[in-house]
Amino acid sequence: MSDATALSAPWRATVLTLYPEMFPGPLGVSLSGDALGRGAWDLSAQNIRAHGLGRHRSVDDTPAGGGAGMVLRCDVLAAAIDAASGPDDPRPRLLMSPRGRPLTQARVRALAAGPGLVVICGRFEGVDERVIAGRGLEEVSIGDYVLSGGEIAAMVLIDACVRLLPGVMGKEASGVEESFENGRLEYPHYTRPREWEGRVIPDVLTGGNHAAIARWRGAEALRLTAERRPDLLDRSVMPFTE
Amino acid sequence: MSDATALSAPWRATVLTLYPEMFPGPLGVSLSGDALGRGAWDLSAQNIRAHGLGRHRSVDDTPAGGGAGMVLRCDVLAAAIDAASGPDDPRPRLLMSPRGRPLTQARVRALAAGPGLVVICGRFEGVDERVIAGRGLEEVSIGDYVLSGGEIAAMVLIDACVRLLPGVMGKEASGVEESFENGRLEYPHYTRPREWEGRVIPDVLTGGNHAAIARWRGAEALRLTAERRPDLLDRSVMPFTE
Repeated sequence: MSDATALSAPWRATVLTLYPEMFPGPLGVSLSGDALGRGAWDLSAQNIRAHGLGRHRSVDDTPAGGGAGMVLRCDVLAAAIDAASGPDDPRPRLLMSPRGRPLTQARVRALAAGPGLVVICGRFEGVDERVIAGRGLEEVSIGDYVLSGGEIAAMVLIDACVRLLPGVMGKEASGVEESFENGRLEYPHYTRPREWEGRVIPDVLTGGNHAAIARWRGAEALRLTAERRPDLLDRSVMPFTE
Repeated sequence: MSDATALSAPWRATVLTLYPEMFPGPLGVSLSGDALGRGAWDLSAQNIRAHGLGRHRSVDDTPAGGGAGMVLRCDVLAAAIDAASGPDDPRPRLLMSPRGRPLTQARVRALAAGPGLVVICGRFEGVDERVIAGRGLEEVSIGDYVLSGGEIAAMVLIDACVRLLPGVMGKEASGVEESFENGRLEYPHYTRPREWEGRVIPDVLTGGNHAAIARWRGAEALRLTAERRPDLLDRSVMPFTE
């Protein structure tokens, strides 16, 4: 393999799941689907159950110490990880979990700039804690709510990354001037018609004064962020605390 | 329609999208898919483009004031909303948007206890601001990152709600003792085998002392939350500030 080939190897996502039939799902449509179709990235969904135990390919067992639900076995999950991602695989291994570090656009940007992802989707009550340290998994949460499994969370993570890959978005600019990229929520958008149900596009936006438009947008972004997400402003004025 | 029928009407999600073929997608599989199959909830995906303008069913236009991307027209989106959800529809209308109020498990629980959702999926640069006030849309964000559209975010929201509907989860208990429900991240889980790659299940979990197990789990949940998400602890000691 030449250096040129290595450099152009597509960003690659491998998903470990009990429901590989969920993939590509929505990732096979629209922006990410078009990019997948032309080889701008690569997706592989591997069934954890292929590494299950015994005749029934069992993957889970009751929690030690009792309690509801079932826990994904560490030996089964480790075998699935080892089969999908050898020791030389440079891709980070992420476990989608509400206990994880909250996903941010900065982390998305870093992951999109790397070689890809190995994403493990939890199900049942959780996964055996030992596989997290044993296989160096990074726990990632997409938000403070609970899903029935990690699959849709994995789709969120992959979609957020894929749209930032070179050439995926129609206009590169769309990736920069938007929510979170500059610590602000995005300003309001308007388009035709100029008047709708008595509501009119703000005059400044149709006046043609580009400096005034930029000022208005900046002020609106700041106002919305202060109203809705003052926590984002706190973060952006203390860049060294994170 | 009798009162009994009205009471037993299933929780109903209507999704407005430019990509109805993405649905049910992962929502048609596993926990939510099984529940959908037996009528425990109902899903309808409506194409916004059916209300597009002219021969090309145009739905978007360039942003007033200039800039990259395209903006979803307010008249088109309002027509799609009006067709899907009349003035007597008691369901909240949510617009998936990174500018929205962050989704929490408390909000999920409230939405799951209601009659269902009308979910609008944004695409392009955004939607015309006027339709938000004009149709009473509640902007909801699933996290501080940007997706290529609102569809996967809608799936997150719907999946989180559906798993809380009566009878959907195998054991009701699984819905309570988990991350965020009590302001704590969940404690670590273990299952067989007792020893794996030199890592052993903590003795307390296999000792059979249920009071000691409950204490250990409580302490671990607190330790993990303090380490990873001190913001959750801050919130839970100040219940009146939110």
